[in-house]
Amino acid sequence: MTTTRATAIDPKVEAWLDARADERLESYKAFLRIPSISALPEHAADCRRAAEWIADDLRRIGVDHVEVADTSGHPVVYGDWLRAADAPTALVYCHYDVQPVDPLDLWQSPPFEPAVVDGRMLARGASDDKGQIHMHLRAAEALLATRRALPINVKFVFEGDEESSAAPLERWLVANRDRLAADVGVISDTGFFEGNIPAITVGLRGLMYAQIDVVGSPVDLHSGGYGGVVQNPANALASIIAALHDGDGRVAIPGFYDDVDPLSDDDRRRFADLPFDEDAYLAELELPGLFGEPGYTTLERRGARPSLDVNGMWSGFQGEGAKTIIPAHAHAKVSARLVPSQDPDVIFDRLEAFVRRIAPPGVRTSVTKIGGGRPSVTPVDHPVTQAAARALEATFGRAPVYIREGGSIPVCASFEGTLGLPVVLLGFAPPNNHAHAPNEWMDLENHEMGIRTIVRLLDEIAALPSASA
Amino acid sequence: MTTTRATAIDPKVEAWLDARADERLESYKAFLRIPSISALPEHAADCRRAAEWIADDLRRIGVDHVEVADTSGHPVVYGDWLRAADAPTALVYCHYDVQPVDPLDLWQSPPFEPAVVDGRMLARGASDDKGQIHMHLRAAEALLATRRALPINVKFVFEGDEESSAAPLERWLVANRDRLAADVGVISDTGFFEGNIPAITVGLRGLMYAQIDVVGSPVDLHSGGYGGVVQNPANALASIIAALHDGDGRVAIPGFYDDVDPLSDDDRRRFADLPFDEDAYLAELELPGLFGEPGYTTLERRGARPSLDVNGMWSGFQGEGAKTIIPAHAHAKVSARLVPSQDPDVIFDRLEAFVRRIAPPGVRTSVTKIGGGRPSVTPVDHPVTQAAARALEATFGRAPVYIREGGSIPVCASFEGTLGLPVVLLGFAPPNNHAHAPNEWMDLENHEMGIRTIVRLLDEIAALPSASA
Repeated sequence: MTTTRATAIDPKVEAWLDARADERLESYKAFLRIPSISALPEHAADCRRAAEWIADDLRRIGVDHVEVADTSGHPVVYGDWLRAADAPTALVYCHYDVQPVDPLDLWQSPPFEPAVVDGRMLARGASDDKGQIHMHLRAAEALLATRRALPINVKFVFEGDEESSAAPLERWLVANRDRLAADVGVISDTGFFEGNIPAITVGLRGLMYAQIDVVGSPVDLHSGGYGGVVQNPANALASIIAALHDGDGRVAIPGFYDDVDPLSDDDRRRFADLPFDEDAYLAELELPGLFGEPGYTTLERRGARPSLDVNGMWSGFQGEGAKTIIPAHAHAKVSARLVPSQDPDVIFDRLEAFVRRIAPPGVRTSVTKIGGGRPSVTPVDHPVTQAAARALEATFGRAPVYIREGGSIPVCASFEGTLGLPVVLLGFAPPNNHAHAPNEWMDLENHEMGIRTIVRLLDEIAALPSASA
Repeated sequence: MTTTRATAIDPKVEAWLDARADERLESYKAFLRIPSISALPEHAADCRRAAEWIADDLRRIGVDHVEVADTSGHPVVYGDWLRAADAPTALVYCHYDVQPVDPLDLWQSPPFEPAVVDGRMLARGASDDKGQIHMHLRAAEALLATRRALPINVKFVFEGDEESSAAPLERWLVANRDRLAADVGVISDTGFFEGNIPAITVGLRGLMYAQIDVVGSPVDLHSGGYGGVVQNPANALASIIAALHDGDGRVAIPGFYDDVDPLSDDDRRRFADLPFDEDAYLAELELPGLFGEPGYTTLERRGARPSLDVNGMWSGFQGEGAKTIIPAHAHAKVSARLVPSQDPDVIFDRLEAFVRRIAPPGVRTSVTKIGGGRPSVTPVDHPVTQAAARALEATFGRAPVYIREGGSIPVCASFEGTLGLPVVLLGFAPPNNHAHAPNEWMDLENHEMGIRTIVRLLDEIAALPSASA
């Protein structure tokens, strides 16, 4: 995977960008101030506000046909610039919605009051994924301002449901399939490799998300009067969750691994070749050790093996001191990360069947599907992937690594399946950026250099032999 | 266990009580309105207010030497009436503090706005235990109002820490041992048997209450980036909790049963002889079935076998929808009900040692003691127990049953051990009264008849041959 020498960045664009660093930081902050949490109904208006902010920005910089389109969820922002006759067309995707922010008390500054600390932008969405929308906006602005044109045709799709449900965008993609015709999808919702090494993601895990509910008596019972007499829903839930893994960290649901594509020797060599400092990685996590399925390296477990985790769990008394009850009910959010060729619906069915089989007596247990998305592996050799690699190397001074990542971006499978597009996953979030957690951050150098990389990428795609993009 | 014919209730006292039913209901409600939740620091002033309410009431009805005494916790209310020369002295105990009220949304009326519905008083504390303080106050009032005297000497001790910690009262008992000298302790913090059958409790379980904390990385981690790579604190906690029992409901902590006194054939016969309708009991609980340690009946498991329950459990995301994190930490409140001759400190040590041994790798696990109390078995044949039995039979028209109950009243062991008193557990709460749960209630017939029973009990004790009480 060698890259050929990249074109230099357009000096006019560079000068234009250099002169506007302060104003760019302000627009980044203004966008991050909108609390566009898609999972919480009380933030629906904020999601729309974020969509309108993007649409206004697209119009201001000269993108045509800008539209805030209603969906079954939050709006999709669509905009295109299609005046590059005979040039290829890229479909650029990011999402403007963000994760919830609890627990709030662990944030060192409020999640929607962006703060610049030690070269980092600290805010919910700084990395995942509003920061990356902002980079595409600023790259397009610099090109349109200096040349009155983009080097290729671009269709922008910025959605607002990524953190809560894949369904609204998927429906919108199906309904708008024709107008979304393109040569390649560019998805910016990933990040750099450990050590902040430029990376192109070539594999993503899928997701199966479910809730397990265990219900006992209609009210909490006095643990003195009923302890030893009735099943305890919290204990019952714990026994179910414990049974989902063996003691070594292997998932114990029958059939869970049946459809997993085994790692080839080549796959394993690629993982082993990555410049990974496991000690530094562990030190940053402040854990006594790493843990997971035996027989696989850390990077293999993250990128190419499925996993199953409790995301949340609750039952009974959570206050200070003692309350002596047998809780009336107990609940857990449970999700699996999936790899090719696992199917989220099949995995849900196997989870449900297993829980049904092992559910302890004396309580009522149910499993409900909350969401899912397919895993994907994207092409390393596609000319646009190689164009992105050249753009990264020219900007950051080193060739990117190709990685299979643990996260899930259902839209990647949708672009491939529903739209029939090859996809390049070009993202700029630093590793350990606290996405989904308190104190999410973006490296401001990644943000600035990322804008230059996107400028270069569009020029690189324009320079490709025709029909190769 | 036959009872001899009881003395009739004093007709003057009965007439006085009959004439004041409405005003009595109002004072009951007024007392229940004070949200005296001892476990929550923000209710400390309410606990003091409840103590002052009792003290004012004691003074008003003519009890001498009334005092609101500071302790290391909430105040103890002390009052005595010691003018019955040569008569025995009873030390009467109840507690004015109540359990927390969450989850609030399950209450059919607010917990501190007492409501009378279908012959029941619905409020936090209606049964456990403010309702029973109120019965002692109204019984003493009726006697003092009609006779200007009580038939025996009475020392009242009403505490405010029972639901949160045994330590403050224990310290106060030790410091006030001499002034608390008495012939018998009467503790009213128990209830009637299933079917609302009058009962005297002759056995109580002890308690060991602890918290298990499992801590991973300092922040929640993205479950995509880290799933399969790190130990999940919620999964780890679930595996620890699951290991505390075997699949049949037996506690699996090594040594947990070592000090349990085995049930004798007599013990088992007494349990078997109780008029227990297990189908009705199960139907009222709305459960698919009962569950617990094999080899013992429901009543044996409740009264004479130890148990271990999760009282609360929490970790990570608890909202609607999906949040894809590996929680930074996970917690559980865990408590054991103990029987003679188990020791709460020994049981805590065995729990801690076991958890330490089975704690999964990759996270930090700790166990903290929150509280404890010893189990107790009180004498069935004591003359005051028999006096209480006659008072119950005369008032309710049927002889009481003698029961070993599942709950814990640490003060019972303290009265026996620290003060050297025989104890009678005479309580009036109806079974299934939702103590510690939403919609706690008291049967108003139990409340009214209980007041008459207490009047009779004091007369019965006065009539005992001297030196037998």
